[in-house]
Amino acid sequence: MPLRFITEFELIRRLQQTIPILPRLASSIHTGIGDDAAIVKPRPGHVLLASTDLLAELVHFDFAYMTYRQVGYRAAVANLSDMAAMGATPRYALVGIALPPKTTASDVQNLYGGIREACTMADTAVIGGDTSASRGALFVCLTILGEAQARHVLTRSGARRGDVLYVTGSLGDSRAGCEILRRRKTDPRPMLARDRAYLLKRHIRPTARLAESQKLAHTGLASSAIDLSDGLAGDLRHICEASSLGAVLDLRRLPVSRSLAGYARAQRRDPLEYALIGGEDYELLFTVPMKKVSQVEALIHRGQLCATSIGRMTAAHEGLRIISPSGITSPLRTRSYEHHVRANGCPP
Amino acid sequence: MPLRFITEFELIRRLQQTIPILPRLASSIHTGIGDDAAIVKPRPGHVLLASTDLLAELVHFDFAYMTYRQVGYRAAVANLSDMAAMGATPRYALVGIALPPKTTASDVQNLYGGIREACTMADTAVIGGDTSASRGALFVCLTILGEAQARHVLTRSGARRGDVLYVTGSLGDSRAGCEILRRRKTDPRPMLARDRAYLLKRHIRPTARLAESQKLAHTGLASSAIDLSDGLAGDLRHICEASSLGAVLDLRRLPVSRSLAGYARAQRRDPLEYALIGGEDYELLFTVPMKKVSQVEALIHRGQLCATSIGRMTAAHEGLRIISPSGITSPLRTRSYEHHVRANGCPP
Repeated sequence: MPLRFITEFELIRRLQQTIPILPRLASSIHTGIGDDAAIVKPRPGHVLLASTDLLAELVHFDFAYMTYRQVGYRAAVANLSDMAAMGATPRYALVGIALPPKTTASDVQNLYGGIREACTMADTAVIGGDTSASRGALFVCLTILGEAQARHVLTRSGARRGDVLYVTGSLGDSRAGCEILRRRKTDPRPMLARDRAYLLKRHIRPTARLAESQKLAHTGLASSAIDLSDGLAGDLRHICEASSLGAVLDLRRLPVSRSLAGYARAQRRDPLEYALIGGEDYELLFTVPMKKVSQVEALIHRGQLCATSIGRMTAAHEGLRIISPSGITSPLRTRSYEHHVRANGCPP
Repeated sequence: MPLRFITEFELIRRLQQTIPILPRLASSIHTGIGDDAAIVKPRPGHVLLASTDLLAELVHFDFAYMTYRQVGYRAAVANLSDMAAMGATPRYALVGIALPPKTTASDVQNLYGGIREACTMADTAVIGGDTSASRGALFVCLTILGEAQARHVLTRSGARRGDVLYVTGSLGDSRAGCEILRRRKTDPRPMLARDRAYLLKRHIRPTARLAESQKLAHTGLASSAIDLSDGLAGDLRHICEASSLGAVLDLRRLPVSRSLAGYARAQRRDPLEYALIGGEDYELLFTVPMKKVSQVEALIHRGQLCATSIGRMTAAHEGLRIISPSGITSPLRTRSYEHHVRANGCPP
C-alpha cells in the first residue's frame, strides 16, 4: 500500500510490530517506540557510546542493485561496526527514515526487517526513531547506543610508536562486490560463480566485527582500533592523526581473498588497489603493543582471532608509507578514499 | 567555499571548531566528535532517554523562507522539546546532515551554529554526528540523549480519568507565523507590525519548555505529558491512546495570543482553528490529578508556571470531545493534524 494512504501513526504501529524488543534486553528498556523518547537503564559502571550514520539513496545505496531489506541490513551493520571500532557492546538503535512518495508500506517494513535482522544478530534493540517524508531520495539515519567499561574502550588515539598494525578478515572484497553488482548485465569478462557469490555476499551482507573487537578490548591486547569504512589507507590515516604518529604498511602482507585475487585478475586490475582503497569492508584495523604481539599471534594461531599483521606505527614525521610488493619503501601518495562530501559509495 | 572542494574530514574539523564542548559538561564527556563513537559517562541512578528527529528540506523547512542558522536552531528545539515532553534533562546531541552539492561550507557552519545556539541554551553538548552527500534536498537528523530519575519521567501513558488537562503558553502562533513567512510578499491584508513580529518569532525561534517540564516532573504534579509538535488535537489523541482514555477539550479556554487573535481576524479565520490544529508550537500538554490541581494553580497564580487548564480526561468510550464557544459538547471530528507521511510542515 503506498504511503500516501497511511498516516505516520499507522506506519509507526506497523513498525512496532516489525521490531519487537528482544526478551533478553527487555529488563533494561523502560519505554521503547511510541513515546516522545525511548527510556533505557544504563548498566552501572559503564560508559555510554553513541554513533550516528546518515545514509542516502544514490550516494550510499541504490535500489537498482539492492533490495530494501539488504539496504536496511547494510545500514545497520555500518552503524554497529562503529561500536566494534570502539570495543563496545551495541545495545540500542534509533532509526530515522525519510521516505519518498513512491515508497510502499511493504518497502518500509522490508527496510526495517533488514535493520532488525542485523540488530538482532548483535543483540541490539530498536528502541525508537522517526519517520518523515522526502521529496526526493530515501534517507536512513541510524543512531547506535552502546556500552563499555571505560578502561576497555578502544579509541583511535591509543596507538604508540612501534605498535604492530593488524587487520581482521580480508580487504577489498566489498568494493569488488559492489562493482560486480553494478556491472552485472554488462560485464563481459568471465568469473567463477563461487568468486562472484563470495564477493557479492561480502558487499551485501557484511559483518560487524563485534566479537573480535570485544575480545581485543577485554583482554587489553589492542592499543587503538578503527573499523574500515573508508578503506584501509583512509582509515589508517585517522589512527595516525589521532595518535600523532606515522605508519608503514607492508603491501605484501595485505590479506586478499582468493575470490578478490581471481576477480582482479579477470578485470586486469591490481587486487592491492582494492585492498588499499576499497571501503565498506567493516573489518577492524587495530594496533598491538610489541610486548603483546605474541599473545595476539597465539590467538590467531589457535583460530580464535582471524587477523593479519600488516605493518607498524612509526614517528609522525615519517608520515604514511608503504612497502611495495618488490620491497621498496615509499610514501603513500594517494589521499586514498578520503571521500569528498559530494561523492561516496562504490567508486566508478 | 562549495563543499566539493572540501573533504568530509576537513568539514568535520571545521565543525569541531564551530561546536566546542561546554565546560560544565566536559567532565561527563570522555570523547566527543572525532572517533567512531562519542563516549559519555551516564549519571548514576538515572535512566537514559533517547529521541531522533529527521527533518527534510521542502517538507519541514524551506531555505526560501528561513536561513541555515534558523533551520538549525528550529531543528534542535524540535528535538530538545522531546526531552521536555518526558520531563528529562537533555545532555548530548548527535547531528547527521546530508548535504546537496549546492551547499557551501559556510551554510553548513551556519546550520551547525543554529543547532549549537539552541543546544547551548539547553546545556546540551553536540558530541558526534555524520556528514553525508545528498543528491537532492538537505536533511538534518538529530538525536538527543537526556537523563532523568526514573520516578520523575513523564510518559504519555500516565494520565488517569478525571485528570485536568493543561497547556503551557499559547497555541497556534507557530502556524500563523509560518503562513506569514510564506505569504510575505503577496499578502494584501493589513496586520500590526507587532503581531507580525511576534508570530514570526514564535515560528522561527520557538522554545523547548524544559524548565516547565522539569518543574512538573520533579514536583510530581503532572501524571503525563507530551510536547505539541503535531498540534493540540493530534497530540492529545496520543495521550488518550497511550493512557486508554478519552478527553474533553473546552475550546473557550484555549490560550490564544493577542497577536494570533489579531492575525486571524485580519485573515477572516477562526483563531481556534490555529490553536486546535496548528503544529510546532513546542508547548507542553500535560495532565494533573485532581488532588494536585490546587498546587498547579498556585504555581500559575504566583507566576512560576505559565499554563492554562483546557479540559479533562474522560473514559475511553467517550472519545475525544470538544466544548464549543457556545457551550455545546460534541465529538472532535477532525482527524486533526495527523499528518500523512507524504506531507508535513506548514499547511497551505
